[in-house]
Amino acid sequence: MRLLFLGDMVGRSGRTAVYDRLPALISDFRLDFVIVNGENAAGGFGVTEEILLQTLQAGADVMTTGNHVWDQREAIEFCERQERFLRPANFPAGTPGRGANLYRARNGAQVLVSNIMGRVFMHPDLDDPFQAAEAILSACPLGEQADAVIFDFHAEATSEKQCFGHFVDGRASLVVGTHTHVPTADCQILNGGTAYMSDAGMCGDYDSSLGMDKEEPLNRFLSKMPKGRFEAAAGEATICGVAVDISDRTGLAEKVAPLRLGPRLAESIPSFWNA
Amino acid sequence: MRLLFLGDMVGRSGRTAVYDRLPALISDFRLDFVIVNGENAAGGFGVTEEILLQTLQAGADVMTTGNHVWDQREAIEFCERQERFLRPANFPAGTPGRGANLYRARNGAQVLVSNIMGRVFMHPDLDDPFQAAEAILSACPLGEQADAVIFDFHAEATSEKQCFGHFVDGRASLVVGTHTHVPTADCQILNGGTAYMSDAGMCGDYDSSLGMDKEEPLNRFLSKMPKGRFEAAAGEATICGVAVDISDRTGLAEKVAPLRLGPRLAESIPSFWNA
Amino acid sequence: MRLLFLGDMVGRSGRTAVYDRLPALISDFRLDFVIVNGENAAGGFGVTEEILLQTLQAGADVMTTGNHVWDQREAIEFCERQERFLRPANFPAGTPGRGANLYRARNGAQVLVSNIMGRVFMHPDLDDPFQAAEAILSACPLGEQADAVIFDFHAEATSEKQCFGHFVDGRASLVVGTHTHVPTADCQILNGGTAYMSDAGMCGDYDSSLGMDKEEPLNRFLSKMPKGRFEAAAGEATICGVAVDISDRTGLAEKVAPLRLGPRLAESIPSFWNA
Amino acid sequence: MRLLFLGDMVGRSGRTAVYDRLPALISDFRLDFVIVNGENAAGGFGVTEEILLQTLQAGADVMTTGNHVWDQREAIEFCERQERFLRPANFPAGTPGRGANLYRARNGAQVLVSNIMGRVFMHPDLDDPFQAAEAILSACPLGEQADAVIFDFHAEATSEKQCFGHFVDGRASLVVGTHTHVPTADCQILNGGTAYMSDAGMCGDYDSSLGMDKEEPLNRFLSKMPKGRFEAAAGEATICGVAVDISDRTGLAEKVAPLRLGPRLAESIPSFWNA
Ligand SMILES: [Fe+2]
Ligand SMILES: [Fe+2]
Ligand SMILES: [Fe+2]
Ligand SMILES: [Fe+2]
Ligand SMILES: [Fe+2]
Ligand SMILES: [Fe+2]
Ligand SMILES: [Fe+2]
Ligand SMILES: [Fe+2]
Repeated sequence: MRLLFLGDMVGRSGRTAVYDRLPALISDFRLDFVIVNGENAAGGFGVTEEILLQTLQAGADVMTTGNHVWDQREAIEFCERQERFLRPANFPAGTPGRGANLYRARNGAQVLVSNIMGRVFMHPDLDDPFQAAEAILSACPLGEQADAVIFDFHAEATSEKQCFGHFVDGRASLVVGTHTHVPTADCQILNGGTAYMSDAGMCGDYDSSLGMDKEEPLNRFLSKMPKGRFEAAAGEATICGVAVDISDRTGLAEKVAPLRLGPRLAESIPSFWNA
Repeated sequence: MRLLFLGDMVGRSGRTAVYDRLPALISDFRLDFVIVNGENAAGGFGVTEEILLQTLQAGADVMTTGNHVWDQREAIEFCERQERFLRPANFPAGTPGRGANLYRARNGAQVLVSNIMGRVFMHPDLDDPFQAAEAILSACPLGEQADAVIFDFHAEATSEKQCFGHFVDGRASLVVGTHTHVPTADCQILNGGTAYMSDAGMCGDYDSSLGMDKEEPLNRFLSKMPKGRFEAAAGEATICGVAVDISDRTGLAEKVAPLRLGPRLAESIPSFWNA
Repeated sequence: MRLLFLGDMVGRSGRTAVYDRLPALISDFRLDFVIVNGENAAGGFGVTEEILLQTLQAGADVMTTGNHVWDQREAIEFCERQERFLRPANFPAGTPGRGANLYRARNGAQVLVSNIMGRVFMHPDLDDPFQAAEAILSACPLGEQADAVIFDFHAEATSEKQCFGHFVDGRASLVVGTHTHVPTADCQILNGGTAYMSDAGMCGDYDSSLGMDKEEPLNRFLSKMPKGRFEAAAGEATICGVAVDISDRTGLAEKVAPLRLGPRLAESIPSFWNA
Repeated sequence: MRLLFLGDMVGRSGRTAVYDRLPALISDFRLDFVIVNGENAAGGFGVTEEILLQTLQAGADVMTTGNHVWDQREAIEFCERQERFLRPANFPAGTPGRGANLYRARNGAQVLVSNIMGRVFMHPDLDDPFQAAEAILSACPLGEQADAVIFDFHAEATSEKQCFGHFVDGRASLVVGTHTHVPTADCQILNGGTAYMSDAGMCGDYDSSLGMDKEEPLNRFLSKMPKGRFEAAAGEATICGVAVDISDRTGLAEKVAPLRLGPRLAESIPSFWNA
């Protein structure tokens, strides 16, 4: 199975790039399943239902999120009816929406997708991400109900990301980090067969601070005072993510490589896609 | 001028890889200047004078550090006499050692190297890294006393790293982040001519947690209790860094690309080195 | 029922003061139950089994702890056999020792004591303290198995402490904070009948930094570098805590007042004790 | 000289209590100088110029602030013309307003008041509070230009507060902490003659979370999601602060005691005021 994961889509610039390029990627490379992290899609802060639907229309199968999930308050409501929308799974019991779900890919495979948030430097008030993963994997193990298992681990600290990868190694097809908005160059297949990349990077304008216009963030670092507002940067976006080919037999990773398309970063198209 | 920067060298595994490979890299590709971050060289924690000298012998011109700089207490002493050893510049006035210095490269150029530490999620007690950079650049501006200016910005948060890059854009040859131990795939030349990469990655075993044996870090995440000690991972290291070609005329970047050599990550040798 | 809670006992100075004064307090004021937080009893870092036994011998019924619980590694072992020793309850399932337990007071009452750790600015990796309290209260509710319910909420942030107090208000006899080593002057009986005080303060030398010799802590703030070691301050200790009279009928608080005895702070003996 | 410092005034409830009670306190007890921390005066978030003027009219000589100083954007402007308004001194050079100033008390004495913010668990991006204090004391030493020196040290961590107290001990009349909104019971005169109290507490409704209506803060701890807005609690406020009698000869403290007046906490009026 051929899967593509795209990192945090930031603002109009990020959305435009994803909407423009995703349909051709899906058809040219016969992608079976696409996940897009959308936590910054609405001007940098959260996501509206309309944006969710447009992203699905562009070909995404699932949208994951992160710490910005509730920035647009309407998400608290639409997360209930939109089953292709995931919020972090390690919110406490009773939280609206879902943090993991099973989806059918275009090749017929059952894909378990889960969005989990790290806690180090992030949200100390969420439930343990490792316990959350354990519960999700127990309920729907790879090789039984699930033909593939994908974790979007939304976290800051590389130690927590790597330990999470090792923790589910052999029990997941892919662990990909999000949240730092910077693509990492460390993708590999771990010893147990799980593809791993510390951060997918963002789909946004890389002449910026994390996809936001750099003026106000830089002002804050210099003056320690607010001046204007944080706004998404308007330059052309580079889309970033990770591609993984998953064994139909084992559900583990066979190939993994980064995807980077756009004006600011060195372009990268998985070599195994050209097969 | 052809410069190579290598990220945090972790433990014996990282040292061995650097000592083995650096001499050939320098001669094969005619490198004019080499910087190695050594904050984790001694078993993961700090650096001894002996390791410093071995690293210089292997061809490094300067060793930078970070939050682990004083882990080996002898550093408090030898940092005074070893002028090729840098600690973060934004320690308060009166701190032993130096945080920036001017060195002569093999091509005769004067290279200002500075090590500065970020504060977000790190050390709130250090001086402002932006003010520190401003002072260093004022004292020794690019194009005047310095033919090249290199910042090792040792920090956690990508926002702080990117804003730092924009802040010195046009006034430095290279800003490269360290500390996360994960190489990023975002190297680019900023609008003003400064090469930028969020993190160089580490020189260490990438089947690990940040270059440390993964057992104890994973135990801490699972049990929240200490069990054993943190020890450097013993597997073969991948060396990671960034290469930049700097204009002899302007001191700004002409080319930038990642270097990755070793068993676990996709190898990358700057294409412009083959010229 | 007359209960006394003493805050973090720091080093030899703190132990000496508690051992010297507790027996007379118990007999003079006919105290039915005494709890002492001992997380800093061994030179500031954790507690040994010998210190635990000495503290029980001085009259304490239970010792609670906090983030320093495992500083003396022997605690990992003796916590299993010493049922009057509590570690924070919100460590994950499978952690040695216990975080809540039922004890018989000298008046025959069954006292549930629980030690829970906050997460804000503290340990983001522990389980949710609010969910932990809910589980403990469900298993052993006030007015059923328990005649009194005491929470030592070991936390930094006053917001988390106050919200915890409101959360269990009416379901506990006393919520007392520990960890800041500074007694607060905010004790009150909340609307539902639970006595509350944000921090008990420490039993230690108040001419210090948190009971530790102030030289090295101050050096760290000034130089941002280690110089010596952290050592417990040796001056005479002031013992600090909170006294609560609990209704035999309802298990809720009837009276609450601070206790402060020693050379540095304004002395305070509960007026209702003189009855 | 007789000085009163009142802690963070929160919302309408806090303002009402201060406006109602301060004039009589000043006249009944012949107070020479009054400082009020106003960072939460406007609904919990910052302060308006109108509130500043009303507070001065009620008898305050100076208003200090803290991390909420810029919450009402108009403060960025009026801080320039209102010299009785202080923002933390350790903002970088070029920040509007002032962080320290000299005022004439009703007894003719020159009082240096400074507002400084801690960094631990707070604002890592501010300048070093210890260096800031050093600069302020060098420019205007106690016993020379200043007859009294008062620091409002707005900080979270008790270690930083205590070390700050020791750092300026003998060079200031009073160091009083603010920010936790909980009064501490640790006031003392340090070895060098400086009166010290870790936190003044707030002037606000103590049936709350930090003076804010407790419903939403508690909701956030339980659900980890926003539901409503943070609003100041409306119940009757207790005013909290610290009183210090300062030697006209040395500028050091002769007496120090807490002030607490209101419905929820044990009332405390300095015994030496009744003289
Ligand atoms: Fe994001
Ligand atoms: Fe995020
Ligand atoms: Fe490092
Ligand atoms: Fe580091
Ligand atoms: Fe403690
Ligand atoms: Fe503690
Ligand atoms: Fe406040
Ligand atoms: Fe504050």
